[in-house]
Amino acid sequence: MAAVALVQGASRGLGLEFCKHILSKKSEALIIATCRSPEKALQLKDLGERYPGKVTILKVDVTRENEIQQAAEIVKSKFGKIDLLINSSAMLLPSGKGETSLRDISFEGLVATLTTNTVGPLVMAKYFSPLLMNGSGGFGQQTADKSKQHSGIIVNMTAKVGSIGDNRLGGWYSYRMSKAALNMATRNLSIELGRGRAKVVCVSLHPGTVDTDLSRPYHKNVLKDRLFTTECSVQYLMNLIDNLSVDKTGKCFAWDGSEIPW
Amino acid sequence: MAAVALVQGASRGLGLEFCKHILSKKSEALIIATCRSPEKALQLKDLGERYPGKVTILKVDVTRENEIQQAAEIVKSKFGKIDLLINSSAMLLPSGKGETSLRDISFEGLVATLTTNTVGPLVMAKYFSPLLMNGSGGFGQQTADKSKQHSGIIVNMTAKVGSIGDNRLGGWYSYRMSKAALNMATRNLSIELGRGRAKVVCVSLHPGTVDTDLSRPYHKNVLKDRLFTTECSVQYLMNLIDNLSVDKTGKCFAWDGSEIPW
Repeated sequence: MAAVALVQGASRGLGLEFCKHILSKKSEALIIATCRSPEKALQLKDLGERYPGKVTILKVDVTRENEIQQAAEIVKSKFGKIDLLINSSAMLLPSGKGETSLRDISFEGLVATLTTNTVGPLVMAKYFSPLLMNGSGGFGQQTADKSKQHSGIIVNMTAKVGSIGDNRLGGWYSYRMSKAALNMATRNLSIELGRGRAKVVCVSLHPGTVDTDLSRPYHKNVLKDRLFTTECSVQYLMNLIDNLSVDKTGKCFAWDGSEIPW
Repeated sequence: MAAVALVQGASRGLGLEFCKHILSKKSEALIIATCRSPEKALQLKDLGERYPGKVTILKVDVTRENEIQQAAEIVKSKFGKIDLLINSSAMLLPSGKGETSLRDISFEGLVATLTTNTVGPLVMAKYFSPLLMNGSGGFGQQTADKSKQHSGIIVNMTAKVGSIGDNRLGGWYSYRMSKAALNMATRNLSIELGRGRAKVVCVSLHPGTVDTDLSRPYHKNVLKDRLFTTECSVQYLMNLIDNLSVDKTGKCFAWDGSEIPW
């Protein structure tokens, strides 16, 4: 059966670009694209029209467990499996501005950011892991050893600023904490979903500094050759994904393949 | 002025024991003991009666920013400073049972655990950091170099299972994620509060496997000589705290002084 990729947070930014990239490079693949407001996701709709029969758009707000569960039921009945889950959506804070100091933190901002960036992706993993365990390994690199072949892959989009050990500058409390906790989720998922006969490879990936709505206000100090377009970042990331196998599970990689410390 | 320690989550377990230990070993010290329900904290009340004039009990539910703010205002007007903040309270999950697999996770459980174990301690740090910057360095070890002396100390009680790198067993999703995010908060705090002239040392501490309400259901596989009483654990931890200085800020230590990887 054709490879099936589910991209969560697919209406814009990296998520949208993952959909475009997979459709253009992997002609047999099918895409399930989820976003909060499909009716507003015009670029995603256009993409679906350019690739008829290839794109299924589903409404999923990751802060609503029932929407995630319903989407998983639809995917189960329509496809019976998925081969790749990319948790792509994230917020910096509801305001769009990261905290520069303790003064800026608020209870509501922390909870909202942790809910969207951390809880949502893990609840996605909960409902879609049975479908990933039923996957046919359509993404990544299969090893010769059949006992180590994987059925699916979970990619949690993290960020280098989510590395505790690498943190030298501070600030961005909510975002950093949400990504550190997401990295723990990746690690935990890799252990639980690496035990059985159907193995799911789980990694956190850092896209580099990308020109997206989330990061745009913070680009003035970024060297030009280190500010990626979404196309460029996703090309790097899909190259990494195409080379994933069980020996890489439970780790955090940057766009260039280097491992990021926790 | 006398050393002032604020212990958050002081009604039982490690928090209560920190209060007892400091009062008995540091005769000049004053304790501010916070808990959700002072009216039910009988052991804490008894302690206050045994040390008249030494213990101030304040109501703080760390999931309520306004209660934290009000407590900070009271402490400011009464003491003008604190020298040590210990964030001690934590939950495993509202149910008291850690998730053994993905099936057990729920949106509500994750959010509740992250809110109590992670957001609460950081919001405590927000409101009490000005008082810690006004501290007189009454806890820890002051260096000879005056420019590196600290005014206060923040201790976030973490757990070894909050280490991403050390995670080999998986499970306990909510608790592990909350402590990983708390470790990021510690790291961020150490950077921000280590910059100015008034320095606040910030560490995460792992108490070992302690016989408390939180961990009691999970003791059957713990070797007897590795299951600590709260007295024993707090003795180790206070020995660590007594030796803290700015060169140890931003790290995570176990009860025996060994550094825990992120």
